[in-house]
Amino acid sequence: MTNSATAYQDLMAVQRQTEALGQIAGRLGWDQETMMPRGASDQRAEEMSAMEGVLHARRTDPRIGDWLDSAEGADDVAKAQLRHIRRSFDRASKIPSRLAQALAHQTSVSQGIWADARANNDVAAFLPALQTVITLKREEAACLAQGGDLYDALIDDYEPGATAASLGTMFDGMRPRLVALRQAVLEAAFQPAPLEGRFDQGAQLALARDLATAFGYDWNRGRLDLAVHPFSSGSGNDARITTRVVESDPFNCLYSTIHEVGHACYELGISQDYALTPLGQGVSMGVHESQSRIYENQIGRSRAFTGWMFGQMQARFGNFGSKDADAFFGTVNKVRQGYIRTEADEVQYNLHVMLRFDLERVLILGDLQPSDLEAAWNDRFAADFGFAVDKPSNGVLQDVHWSCGLFGYFPTYSLGNLYAGCLNQALRAAVPDLDAQLATGVTTAATDWLRDNVQQHGGLYHPREVITKACGFEPHEGPLLDYLEAKFSEIYKL
Amino acid sequence: MTNSATAYQDLMAVQRQTEALGQIAGRLGWDQETMMPRGASDQRAEEMSAMEGVLHARRTDPRIGDWLDSAEGADDVAKAQLRHIRRSFDRASKIPSRLAQALAHQTSVSQGIWADARANNDVAAFLPALQTVITLKREEAACLAQGGDLYDALIDDYEPGATAASLGTMFDGMRPRLVALRQAVLEAAFQPAPLEGRFDQGAQLALARDLATAFGYDWNRGRLDLAVHPFSSGSGNDARITTRVVESDPFNCLYSTIHEVGHACYELGISQDYALTPLGQGVSMGVHESQSRIYENQIGRSRAFTGWMFGQMQARFGNFGSKDADAFFGTVNKVRQGYIRTEADEVQYNLHVMLRFDLERVLILGDLQPSDLEAAWNDRFAADFGFAVDKPSNGVLQDVHWSCGLFGYFPTYSLGNLYAGCLNQALRAAVPDLDAQLATGVTTAATDWLRDNVQQHGGLYHPREVITKACGFEPHEGPLLDYLEAKFSEIYKL
Repeated sequence: MTNSATAYQDLMAVQRQTEALGQIAGRLGWDQETMMPRGASDQRAEEMSAMEGVLHARRTDPRIGDWLDSAEGADDVAKAQLRHIRRSFDRASKIPSRLAQALAHQTSVSQGIWADARANNDVAAFLPALQTVITLKREEAACLAQGGDLYDALIDDYEPGATAASLGTMFDGMRPRLVALRQAVLEAAFQPAPLEGRFDQGAQLALARDLATAFGYDWNRGRLDLAVHPFSSGSGNDARITTRVVESDPFNCLYSTIHEVGHACYELGISQDYALTPLGQGVSMGVHESQSRIYENQIGRSRAFTGWMFGQMQARFGNFGSKDADAFFGTVNKVRQGYIRTEADEVQYNLHVMLRFDLERVLILGDLQPSDLEAAWNDRFAADFGFAVDKPSNGVLQDVHWSCGLFGYFPTYSLGNLYAGCLNQALRAAVPDLDAQLATGVTTAATDWLRDNVQQHGGLYHPREVITKACGFEPHEGPLLDYLEAKFSEIYKL
Repeated sequence: MTNSATAYQDLMAVQRQTEALGQIAGRLGWDQETMMPRGASDQRAEEMSAMEGVLHARRTDPRIGDWLDSAEGADDVAKAQLRHIRRSFDRASKIPSRLAQALAHQTSVSQGIWADARANNDVAAFLPALQTVITLKREEAACLAQGGDLYDALIDDYEPGATAASLGTMFDGMRPRLVALRQAVLEAAFQPAPLEGRFDQGAQLALARDLATAFGYDWNRGRLDLAVHPFSSGSGNDARITTRVVESDPFNCLYSTIHEVGHACYELGISQDYALTPLGQGVSMGVHESQSRIYENQIGRSRAFTGWMFGQMQARFGNFGSKDADAFFGTVNKVRQGYIRTEADEVQYNLHVMLRFDLERVLILGDLQPSDLEAAWNDRFAADFGFAVDKPSNGVLQDVHWSCGLFGYFPTYSLGNLYAGCLNQALRAAVPDLDAQLATGVTTAATDWLRDNVQQHGGLYHPREVITKACGFEPHEGPLLDYLEAKFSEIYKL
């Protein structure tokens, strides 16, 4: 065996254990949000910090540098593995272990503080924790940026290759048409009926489970639990999802579930050959979000699929207020004033993201102080949405992300929407009779196409590359905006 | 600061992170038995193995040897910390990392195989996994024993200072009086009524929760879930318990819960000063079991407490078949033919343990082959209990322990019973009016006494020492046997 092949094998053997430990760290996060007794929060922060210390030491192990110098990838898979390991090694090596552990500790503590503050609508109670997280994230960004843009350095962790400038261009391309569409929709003579009534929480959860099954979620390798903020967690053969239930709004539970199923199916759809290797996870948050959003929206909120869901709703909730499948389609997609990003319709969703993108960028650059964040949020929200935030849990405290240190993450949601628009165009071309299948609750053709063209590759290609290969064209915002204008013009009879 | 003090501080800082990582490993085990999707079992084994690799490397870190050489304990607490770290360092250093990781991997896999085999009553399906576990445990024992007795080397992991010889002496002291008591009880003219009927599973679980509360379980630092085999897991501020529910036998759920609450309260009762240090966990399995058993039996199955429970049962299950509190006390404590250790009455429980002690000892010594284990179990059971095992799930497959590699663990159950007998004698002397409190469902005086005299000390004293200090006398089997003879003579009107 050549020296290069030996180095590769040694490297991958060590990396495999690092990946396994990374899975453990992720599951600890899952446990914290679903199962952990509240009194354990300080201890958990120490545990997370210790685990991060282990992971950081492994990621910066000097042997990795030596192996990377000797190893050459024998094929495209090996080359991609080495690329990911090199990237992780270079990034981790720039961050002192002390800082990595402090971040793990603080973000674990801050999540609990955020959840309490959100429940009590008490921004002041969250501010000190947020201030500490931002200070640490700015320190981390400075280590990574090495003189470059602090916010770009953080974005790169979630979306390799993206920058604030490239994302800003994307948003500039989206905003005018989205704002115009929203205005046309809100002023339209025809308005779909809102959903009214109370919906039994157990029945909502039962339907959510059936929807997960309909989208191909493998219950043998996953599970569904409740959490304050829906999320998915884990890779390989253990990809779990969470949802939440609001009695007056079953779409919250149902579409959160489909969304998280999209994330989990991406992880579960990756080639088993890549399990516990750097290729064995979704390649970026943008590509991840493309899967969750196409499951949720282009498939789950389509006229065809909501037609099937209408029957499911009737079977569970009787005459629940929608007079027929056509009315239900309108109700599911109704555009209305709302505070909450995760409950937003497809027209307004990206406007919620733009707000966060602009605010978190200046927070990280030091141009906005955390103490001024609530006011900045409320001002911007009123300007963008035309009405005032009524309480912090509907405003600046609604999202878990900043408490976890996820700065640079929000814009990947809109990138995911853009990718989902492109993938939907390609999927529809590849499966011309898709709607006929969706109308019977069968998603197989869609989910198979996504698995074969996107999910199975894991980290093999660069993020934009995997979308480009799947679509046959370079991703851009056109398909998403065309799709939205067509769909909402139809619903609102524009 | 002296060199010794610096060494102690450095050592304890590293040890604290090791303890935190140990908590993570324990929680992974909890997750595997309660939450993990079945399809994740192979991946989980790799994760457990990687985690064990990390822990083993930390436990055998050469710096620990250097620090131990330099550090001197400034007080009794520091001396005890150093004693535990020395012990862990010496033990771990004898075991190759490869073996430690292989054991973690195999025992993780084998637990799932055991659960399936038990569900299907298929011993043959479990044998290869058991064989592998035993081979690895024999290898581990050989590393630890260094020419000494293999089984003693394993016992020492659970009960420092105990040996097969000392435990055998204990069993020799117990057996004649237990066998005589059983015979007298089974032949007695008066026999308590058995419990009959079906008991709603949700109502059982609700009562189990109330019992846990009555015994002082801190729900803010724990939780209750279902598992195939009840267990408790975790230390510090995150000590979780599990139970199981059988519709025809509510005592299974209720007394398993009280038992696990005893374990968890021990962990939660340890001084917070010892959190995430070697003193921050129960000092041995025998002392642990003394807490679970005194909660379950000397308190939970007392005439006084069952009088209160009778009212609780009536409130939940109506006229469930016991005519009064006196009859219920007899029914709770009824001695009958039964296959299952965890459901056994106090008279026969230790006979179940003796069977396992003798069989696992010869398995580890290589004098019994796993392929002959089922026959050996069935022969021994018929000889000891007077009737035949009807199916493997009632016989050799009933306990999870051997699948997890827990050889040398079973005898600590009887040691715990012996200690519980001693503690009960001391507790009753210290709290003369205890029964009056228990009769109203108030356990505070008992649980406070146990926390103050046993639990709070964690690993500060040697196992026998903590019991001796609490009782004011050296532990021996007399108090347990006297208690059993008095209690069952009264119930059976001997």
